[in-house]
Amino acid sequence: MDKTLIYECNVTERFKQLNRIFSPEKIAIVGVSQEGFSFGRAILLSHLSIGYEGKLYPVNKRGGTIEGITIYKSIEEIPENIDFGIIAIPAPEVPAAVESCLKKGAAGVEILSSGFRETGTEEGILLEEELKKISKKGIRILGPNCFGIYCPRSGQTLLPGPELSREPGGVAFLSQSGGHSVDFALIGKWRGVRFSKVVSFGNGCDLRETEMLYYLKYDPETKVICMYIEGVQDGPEFLEAVKTVTKEKPVLIIKGGLSDSGNRAAASHTASLAGKRQIWEAVFKQSKAIQIDSIPQMVDAALAFTMLPLKEYRGCTIIGGGGALGIAAADAAEEYGLTIPPLSNELQASIMKILPKPGSSATNPIDVANPFVPPKILKEILLYASNDENIDVHLLVFLIYHYMAQKKVMGATSLHSFIPIEELAEVCKEVVENIGKPVILVMPNYRQEKDAMELEEIVRKARELFLKYGIPVYDDVRNALKAVSLVSRYAYYNRS
Amino acid sequence: MDKTLIYECNVTERFKQLNRIFSPEKIAIVGVSQEGFSFGRAILLSHLSIGYEGKLYPVNKRGGTIEGITIYKSIEEIPENIDFGIIAIPAPEVPAAVESCLKKGAAGVEILSSGFRETGTEEGILLEEELKKISKKGIRILGPNCFGIYCPRSGQTLLPGPELSREPGGVAFLSQSGGHSVDFALIGKWRGVRFSKVVSFGNGCDLRETEMLYYLKYDPETKVICMYIEGVQDGPEFLEAVKTVTKEKPVLIIKGGLSDSGNRAAASHTASLAGKRQIWEAVFKQSKAIQIDSIPQMVDAALAFTMLPLKEYRGCTIIGGGGALGIAAADAAEEYGLTIPPLSNELQASIMKILPKPGSSATNPIDVANPFVPPKILKEILLYASNDENIDVHLLVFLIYHYMAQKKVMGATSLHSFIPIEELAEVCKEVVENIGKPVILVMPNYRQEKDAMELEEIVRKARELFLKYGIPVYDDVRNALKAVSLVSRYAYYNRS
Repeated sequence: MDKTLIYECNVTERFKQLNRIFSPEKIAIVGVSQEGFSFGRAILLSHLSIGYEGKLYPVNKRGGTIEGITIYKSIEEIPENIDFGIIAIPAPEVPAAVESCLKKGAAGVEILSSGFRETGTEEGILLEEELKKISKKGIRILGPNCFGIYCPRSGQTLLPGPELSREPGGVAFLSQSGGHSVDFALIGKWRGVRFSKVVSFGNGCDLRETEMLYYLKYDPETKVICMYIEGVQDGPEFLEAVKTVTKEKPVLIIKGGLSDSGNRAAASHTASLAGKRQIWEAVFKQSKAIQIDSIPQMVDAALAFTMLPLKEYRGCTIIGGGGALGIAAADAAEEYGLTIPPLSNELQASIMKILPKPGSSATNPIDVANPFVPPKILKEILLYASNDENIDVHLLVFLIYHYMAQKKVMGATSLHSFIPIEELAEVCKEVVENIGKPVILVMPNYRQEKDAMELEEIVRKARELFLKYGIPVYDDVRNALKAVSLVSRYAYYNRS
Repeated sequence: MDKTLIYECNVTERFKQLNRIFSPEKIAIVGVSQEGFSFGRAILLSHLSIGYEGKLYPVNKRGGTIEGITIYKSIEEIPENIDFGIIAIPAPEVPAAVESCLKKGAAGVEILSSGFRETGTEEGILLEEELKKISKKGIRILGPNCFGIYCPRSGQTLLPGPELSREPGGVAFLSQSGGHSVDFALIGKWRGVRFSKVVSFGNGCDLRETEMLYYLKYDPETKVICMYIEGVQDGPEFLEAVKTVTKEKPVLIIKGGLSDSGNRAAASHTASLAGKRQIWEAVFKQSKAIQIDSIPQMVDAALAFTMLPLKEYRGCTIIGGGGALGIAAADAAEEYGLTIPPLSNELQASIMKILPKPGSSATNPIDVANPFVPPKILKEILLYASNDENIDVHLLVFLIYHYMAQKKVMGATSLHSFIPIEELAEVCKEVVENIGKPVILVMPNYRQEKDAMELEEIVRKARELFLKYGIPVYDDVRNALKAVSLVSRYAYYNRS
């Protein structure tokens, strides 16, 4: 029987169990030291800090208390059944703990401990085989050698993840790397990406990429599926899964270990055979998954895939103060298969009338000749430019750090008085609502000195405001254009 | 006679005049309004703010005073001869002002005003022709349509450039774009790049790319020449100049306007014929100049070209906490022609002895399994790894933002107590001094929230410390590897 069908057929039963794993009301955390640093203690404190509302049962053979919570001396001593176990004890003790969690009714466990197949030792390999056997008895295992689950809705969090956002969103992330899962969740938080489920599955002895892909296909919370893959267990099965899922939802994949030295490192990291570059190129081509280079690029892409309509984009406006800025954007656009087409003569004439002179240009790139134009002028520019049928999206490049010099030269007391960010954000929101062509804000901030606090505050505030109004915000025009091009590629792939 | 020879032969005479332009003791600023915003007022205040030590003579037909300085009603009224003029008045009035500066003995002027050839109008083109004629009488003209000169040694600064660094350094920048000149100078300041001369030459009616290249070849202050070029006036002459100069100093070039829409935008920006992509590919190939994509990448490259020995690099170590981090670095390294070779078995064994366990790896990438290792362990790792003959450079990846979670989980009061940045910087410095293999710090910081001030302060402090010790600091491992590969390419090109 086709394995893909097995996954699809067993949807109801399997998914109920997975749903329970992503909404546990009672979690045992095994390996919680009363003091000092340990993975168990860190993950418990992370769950307390993020505000997980269910019951936490710390376990440690030495007993004691932590933050006023009793530490049980064994899993068996926990006074009621549990939904989920988090295991952070030395590898040789892990199988017994998983068995105990199973007896306590847990739907699954995440094993943070390392020391399994990734070590390449016989002992490690045997221990992992043992885990596989236990999982067959009806408990699902995430890991070992992983950072666990982050689920804003349930309050589950990664190791360490005390400060991740509780606001749920449409981005799922399946990651063979714990570090990447924390990085994506953290950077995403700061950049406006909100998550449904982030799953670090490490060695993936049981739950891993292919099955989770099918699960996320049906997960109503998940709109975009991001993955970090070092190696897959069954290539054809994985390819089939990606092919199936991309028809429903975008799948963005970072494939780690494509180089010789990366491949070698992947073997010792998660015991993965990373596979040849050519094979993976074929996988991307056939599956229509979107290949992503790095976590920062994944953040950029996730922002675009959740905030922009999933359609084809070609013509962009670039609106900003500076000639070279527009030229750089135009060059980058072409690299990514986008264009900065000249506006119609009529529209150029209308825009030229309202631009400051001299030094401005209405051709597109639209050079507003100053670091900014007043909100009502910006609105008119956006409305005129939207009338051009060749324009699909507007990029507003806002070199906010130039105001520092302006302020100094003009002897102004407050930077904020220069920059009407509230009005600018409102204007952009109105245009998007009225015209339906998206606006993207590009707001580089390279300031890193002591005296840049005021600027950083404005950049932060502007970012929050624009994001609140549904306008994605980027640090760099190249990154923004690249992200738009990826959304466009997905739409092109899925043309009906 | 070969034009190249003309430049080379006239070195002494021409260069004396240019030297005077870059060290003026008396500057007339023409078009300084007493109040409000004007280019003239902004450039005057910028010069005051940066602490230019020479004499400033503001000029405006309406007279008045500014910051206690008399505004002369005409250039002629200035009571003594001047070295340099800065002109910021409407285009039609500019030629007369340049003539007046010539009469006052100025070696040159920079014309900030726009409204010349870049407008495409007959009037603008004729005005620019007039400027060319005047320049033949013995005064050198920068611009029009430019942001002028930034020279930390002389205290000349750009429009606006009140807060640029006064610390001189080895990086020169010749830019057809004013915006790019300000951006490079600002971002460079924050990232540790120090400049000899930054020259925004706009339309370049007189002084422009080719002649300035020869000048910088002989400028003892300049070690690396960076350029932003939209179009050149004489292609073969420019190619010859770059070929000649790259033999002495690295020449890094951003070519703007390679795309169709970028090309079109360049025409209205600085009246440049940007030229076909294929032609420019040949220029880069033949001249051995290094092609750069964007200003942020130029900053990364300039940092490497001034802080690393200009030699060939191939083998890198990646030292950091995290498996995927190392894999990502390895994949990127291969993309840029670098490698992350496995260390010799013997060295691996020595390093493995001192690494925390489990989860670490000494193969290279060296996974230290935690966000950091204590300075003395880091030192040992660096010393051992330097013994491997395949290693040319060390990249230390320091995910400093992970400490925020650590701090929260551990209930520590200060972030600084976790991160011994002083000792880490000292250790790196010692290793570089003893072994001669450079160390590069990669320190991403994606934090952009309100509560990240403490982290930002540590990142800032760490950056300053490492830079002070001669260790370049990058935000991203890909950018660091790319910069190393560019230095390596230059050395390879110039192999004797």
